[in-house]
Amino acid sequence: MKNPVLKKIVIFGVGLIGGSVALALKKAGCTASIAGVGRSIKSLQTAVDLGAIDIASSNVADAIKDADIILIAAPVAQTPAILNAIKPHLTANTVITDAGSTKNDVLSTAKEILGAQFTQFVGGHPIAGAEKSGVTAATADLYRNKNVVLTPTVITNPDAIHRVRELWQTCGANVSEMSAETHDGIFAAVSHLPHLLAFALVDEVASRPNAEQLFGFAASGFRDFTRIAGSHPEMWRDISLANKTALLNEITAYQKELSDLKQMLEREDGDALFALFERASVARNNWAATKKL
Amino acid sequence: MKNPVLKKIVIFGVGLIGGSVALALKKAGCTASIAGVGRSIKSLQTAVDLGAIDIASSNVADAIKDADIILIAAPVAQTPAILNAIKPHLTANTVITDAGSTKNDVLSTAKEILGAQFTQFVGGHPIAGAEKSGVTAATADLYRNKNVVLTPTVITNPDAIHRVRELWQTCGANVSEMSAETHDGIFAAVSHLPHLLAFALVDEVASRPNAEQLFGFAASGFRDFTRIAGSHPEMWRDISLANKTALLNEITAYQKELSDLKQMLEREDGDALFALFERASVARNNWAATKKL
Repeated sequence: MKNPVLKKIVIFGVGLIGGSVALALKKAGCTASIAGVGRSIKSLQTAVDLGAIDIASSNVADAIKDADIILIAAPVAQTPAILNAIKPHLTANTVITDAGSTKNDVLSTAKEILGAQFTQFVGGHPIAGAEKSGVTAATADLYRNKNVVLTPTVITNPDAIHRVRELWQTCGANVSEMSAETHDGIFAAVSHLPHLLAFALVDEVASRPNAEQLFGFAASGFRDFTRIAGSHPEMWRDISLANKTALLNEITAYQKELSDLKQMLEREDGDALFALFERASVARNNWAATKKL
Repeated sequence: MKNPVLKKIVIFGVGLIGGSVALALKKAGCTASIAGVGRSIKSLQTAVDLGAIDIASSNVADAIKDADIILIAAPVAQTPAILNAIKPHLTANTVITDAGSTKNDVLSTAKEILGAQFTQFVGGHPIAGAEKSGVTAATADLYRNKNVVLTPTVITNPDAIHRVRELWQTCGANVSEMSAETHDGIFAAVSHLPHLLAFALVDEVASRPNAEQLFGFAASGFRDFTRIAGSHPEMWRDISLANKTALLNEITAYQKELSDLKQMLEREDGDALFALFERASVARNNWAATKKL
């Protein structure tokens, strides 16, 4: 495997994530042909009309012929089916990567399906907001200065890693590498747990007999805290199940923290409450000051 | 007590909250003289320079002479001292109100200190954001279309309630009345609990050996969820202690919800997770669609 100038990139799932990759590559002057594969021909045609992809295809064999990189950016539940569909058509030069929010499960699936060709698979996770979905929401700047995490294993082909890294760097992203375990632990803490906490709060409030009154007085603090509770239920069911182990550890640690906080309040320990709130506010404000979001 | 055209309004604590009331009244054409009382003469002079107040005073007796309404908008910990200071100078025509985030505790304090004149006290809580503080952050539009809750008791003078209601309506607010117990229960659920949950999450993350790495990958979901964890530690210690009973009930209910969610995940019950996430996301998105924030 070499690192040639890319001639063909194939994207499975040309929505916000895949479409933004395509637009970013085009904007960066990438001369490779970009093919989109998906279940909705109408959506693929929109991607062509928007100038994101050059070719729309529903035929996997045709689409991935001579592909340098295949990016799987479809909903994660489709990943096994896509891997099974592409496997017979892969060459020794084809690199496969994905954009899923969890990585241990994707690596297990890829290893099982791809067998010896698992060395050509590089797990990836672009950390970019997705309030809207679909290719019409895609932008060339979605990944600019955003983090992308790659989770190669010890047997992953170094050229494959290099090629995927360059793909994301071309999109303007900051690329890191870590193990899938480390990745899943980090995102359980800073993304998956907050989502579950927000879902839980809104569900709890909505279940009350006086829910309408409660929502009527909820203001900007509630709005921001619960924004992520408006996220896609199916996607978050899948992420939760895929990252079950790390997420259960996070919930347990959080339950301990909340229980400690409750005890401070029960014994009216103003000093302990102040100390906890101050540690949190200093950490949060320092983070916000240094992080460009 | 009658409802005359107001001649004099006295504001204790001319910061964001008190300053914005003053500016809103001026903008609405209110001809009353507005006096500010505070511990910082420099800050009061700024309020004069900004056109919010007409008179800056550090002498309570002078300031509240002939006052129609006294608004206590200082940090809540100062409320007892302010009530004790004004009590000897109150007339039968002086209405007193406040702007604290909790109401049961304020009403108890006011009843204890004011005695027979407690009938002239109307508890109030303007629901308006306070990311910034100080009179330089005050604006005439802070309360426009925002909720203000008044918590009169059965013995509160109806004219006093009417006068305070008009004050806030002049500022552009939507005024509701409810008992202090109902108020404190509502805000424990939709404001105080979310604040504690956000403080707890950030404190838990910040306590980890790999906190720097975790914060490094935290993105926009974390940013919004934790915005309120950047709030003032002293203010939130005081609110937590003041609303202890209702807040403990909320924490207990939330712990139950979180424990249920954890069990769904432990038994990999995708249907139950989906149902919970869907209820939450529908409720949250409906709320966001109808609420102007």
